[in-house]
Amino acid sequence: MLPSLTFVLGGAASGKSRTAENILVNSGLKLVYLATARIWDSEIQDKVDLHRARRGPEWTTINAPVDLGTPLDQTTPDQAILLDCATMWLTNIMLDEHDLEAEQGALLAALARCRAPVVIVSNEVGQGIVPENVLARRFREAQGRLNISLAQQADHVLHVVAGLPRSLKDTRT
Amino acid sequence: MLPSLTFVLGGAASGKSRTAENILVNSGLKLVYLATARIWDSEIQDKVDLHRARRGPEWTTINAPVDLGTPLDQTTPDQAILLDCATMWLTNIMLDEHDLEAEQGALLAALARCRAPVVIVSNEVGQGIVPENVLARRFREAQGRLNISLAQQADHVLHVVAGLPRSLKDTRT
Amino acid sequence: MLPSLTFVLGGAASGKSRTAENILVNSGLKLVYLATARIWDSEIQDKVDLHRARRGPEWTTINAPVDLGTPLDQTTPDQAILLDCATMWLTNIMLDEHDLEAEQGALLAALARCRAPVVIVSNEVGQGIVPENVLARRFREAQGRLNISLAQQADHVLHVVAGLPRSLKDTRT
Repeated sequence: MLPSLTFVLGGAASGKSRTAENILVNSGLKLVYLATARIWDSEIQDKVDLHRARRGPEWTTINAPVDLGTPLDQTTPDQAILLDCATMWLTNIMLDEHDLEAEQGALLAALARCRAPVVIVSNEVGQGIVPENVLARRFREAQGRLNISLAQQADHVLHVVAGLPRSLKDTRT
Repeated sequence: MLPSLTFVLGGAASGKSRTAENILVNSGLKLVYLATARIWDSEIQDKVDLHRARRGPEWTTINAPVDLGTPLDQTTPDQAILLDCATMWLTNIMLDEHDLEAEQGALLAALARCRAPVVIVSNEVGQGIVPENVLARRFREAQGRLNISLAQQADHVLHVVAGLPRSLKDTRT
Repeated sequence: MLPSLTFVLGGAASGKSRTAENILVNSGLKLVYLATARIWDSEIQDKVDLHRARRGPEWTTINAPVDLGTPLDQTTPDQAILLDCATMWLTNIMLDEHDLEAEQGALLAALARCRAPVVIVSNEVGQGIVPENVLARRFREAQGRLNISLAQQADHVLHVVAGLPRSLKDTRT
């Protein structure tokens, strides 16, 4: 039995997407991939292609770079949702200059309403040196706050380091 | 019963200050906040104001950007000290070109002498890519060494990720 | 009894080299240090000197900035190997524009063949903000993938934070 909300947090190239996929892949549910990446260059395109090839054809992919409420509301209980990832979504929200607090509240509410189990992936970005760029500093503050809120709402929180997931919270036990 | 020294380590916006406050707030002791931030722009001022509003009026705030020995020596056993944070203090020490090793030794000695329980907050800054800036590289080396020393001296060490504290060391158990 | 392969991962100045040394130092085996650092400036030289002084004269140091297969193949079962570190090795491989995938495969194979216990040290570099520099982004992707592979092959994986190692994997228990 999958929890309503699982939060998978990790650094870049830490194996967090694969960890998230593994949680859902044997659930017996219809696999839905909510893709938040906007493809603005070949570096992103290559990464998206790689992830898509690894996931395989049993996944339905829905592009949702900004509006996650609509696809989350349209899910049915026979589905399992992989939302990959909160970091790309936050990047899009900030670049488009949406109201961050309102959008974060709407996302958390939509996750709470969702009738299918959701695994949401996010990046840990705050354990390096202070960035010189003010936008980067704002981003890591916003990402930190979003991660805290997602961790608070999630039933199960995993931190992935070098491909190895470790549970930080599990309300089921 | 609070340990003599608790060390709370975490990334930017990881919830480490709140974790530290929660440790002290129900201690029944007089709450003292040793603030190390130098307010040189509105970005820092906003953050300081936000933290101060959250803590509430039961906290006495003492500004101590460089000299922590004096306020630590003046504490009484009916107080509980939150030192927030070692990273700002280290920034001030390095910008003022104090003797880092001497100052670190003095801080550790003052923490050992202090008659009230202390919770000290610090940033993890070494898990990103090598900074291009030599000063940033020196800073993360110095911060790493300071964190190791604080963790060694502390009775209880907590690492906070996404608002969730995890114990790395606890000499009380 | 030392495991065949121990993987020690940590941030900059986290105490990972010392953790790795401590694993081997009381093994009763002949201590061999495989040094991957290329000394291109005084900053690296100082660090290398500091590490060497700390390790002491019972260690035999072999410089191996790129070719790790040869020294690993020449080890004997009465030795214990400290490979410090995978991050410097990866830097050299990428700067020299070797075939990364081939070199990584060769390293993993040589580690599997090695007749002495090996402790390999590596940096966690993916928990900061996205680097603006494309080479830095490529490096952290490559470092992340290498860390995942090393963790997968290792019997014992330790993550070091503020000098405190925590086990992420241990196949011996």
